[in-house]
Amino acid sequence: AGWQVQDNAPTVQGVVEQALGRLLKTTLRVTASGRTDAGVHALGQVANFRTTGRVPLRGFVHGLNGLLPRDVAVRAAAEVPAEFDSRRSAVHKTYRYFLYRSPTPSAFGRRTSWRLSRPLDLAAMRAGAGHLVGTHDFSAFRSAGCDAPHAVREIHELAMVERGEYLEVEVRGNAFLRNMVRIIVGTLVEIGEGRRAPESVVGLLAEGDRTRAGATAPPQGLFLAEVCYDTPVLEAYP
Amino acid sequence: AGWQVQDNAPTVQGVVEQALGRLLKTTLRVTASGRTDAGVHALGQVANFRTTGRVPLRGFVHGLNGLLPRDVAVRAAAEVPAEFDSRRSAVHKTYRYFLYRSPTPSAFGRRTSWRLSRPLDLAAMRAGAGHLVGTHDFSAFRSAGCDAPHAVREIHELAMVERGEYLEVEVRGNAFLRNMVRIIVGTLVEIGEGRRAPESVVGLLAEGDRTRAGATAPPQGLFLAEVCYDTPVLEAYP
Repeated sequence: AGWQVQDNAPTVQGVVEQALGRLLKTTLRVTASGRTDAGVHALGQVANFRTTGRVPLRGFVHGLNGLLPRDVAVRAAAEVPAEFDSRRSAVHKTYRYFLYRSPTPSAFGRRTSWRLSRPLDLAAMRAGAGHLVGTHDFSAFRSAGCDAPHAVREIHELAMVERGEYLEVEVRGNAFLRNMVRIIVGTLVEIGEGRRAPESVVGLLAEGDRTRAGATAPPQGLFLAEVCYDTPVLEAYP
Repeated sequence: AGWQVQDNAPTVQGVVEQALGRLLKTTLRVTASGRTDAGVHALGQVANFRTTGRVPLRGFVHGLNGLLPRDVAVRAAAEVPAEFDSRRSAVHKTYRYFLYRSPTPSAFGRRTSWRLSRPLDLAAMRAGAGHLVGTHDFSAFRSAGCDAPHAVREIHELAMVERGEYLEVEVRGNAFLRNMVRIIVGTLVEIGEGRRAPESVVGLLAEGDRTRAGATAPPQGLFLAEVCYDTPVLEAYP
């Protein structure tokens, strides 16, 4: 049910805190770089916690993986300066959204991509994407439930990479609003299918009206790929 | 439980024949290019059947996909000459085996790859693979249960392709013995980990002793990728 801990549903934060609690024999909270919604995946989520426990880094990695369900894995552990905060210290984040272009379903990837039956006009999608790169008010690209104080964000890169039947939409930016990547992808797909002009993005940014942007793309195609920091790492495993 | 129909376990052949039966309101058998074992995947399995029913090709594709469980999908349908036989008419087949090279597990791909913690010496693996290309008696590379009358097969290509943390072993050949690809991969991995010399493959081919080849690689990394025919296709969808 997504990252954030909930009372009545299993969440990534919940199972990680439970495993850490068993490993360290205490209760603690972990802070992530951001909350992923239910159905969204992460290849490179970063979470931090403070402990006075003396478990070595390799013990955290292998110990937690032994306690976690198999659809949650710890890839690495690092000791960082005390002031490090997974969310506030992040310099930029990269998301990847997988579009599967095929008139017929596949037995693979149905939980990790959004299948589109109609062909996509990549040149039009790239033209639309070009208008989104840079610093803008992304009010039209945030969900109603977004509680960020303002909607100005910077997108450093918005690339479309073809890999066979898959089209990867890769977005790198300084920070993201709630559902921002999924609404961007939904809008670019409408452009790719010829249901919206690439230039319509300019008006969306200027007017900030969520109801005029594209539909929110389904969660299962979205991956939090990488979070970057310039904090020095004191020690890391592996 | 693999391709071949069984009484007490769900199989791919079983669910396909059941769906076809519902669509055509009759009982029939389908013939595949080969049986995949339990846990092995297929991206391009080909199966044929005879019918006098008048369902259009697009009706087979979408009708079957509506009736099949979501982990089995029909990618395309084609009408072929009456003498076509998925197994006997095959000119060559391509298998792909996915090795995931990482000291830590991933939440993704655990059902579609074999994870190896130790680094692999690719040059040694390629040297070992080179000895397998061509026409040989592959007796050392068939499982005890293999009932083929002889073990001479031709491997056209045996390539190792790096894709980030993944290493794909791609094997193309005229036909394959039972577990042949998995035993080849198991042997190449032992070479890559330095537990066996690349030249040992020459002796394995000459002596034909299964017990001296590598362990059978686990099924979940193996994909039947493509089966090629030179039969003319009368009509196809999509």
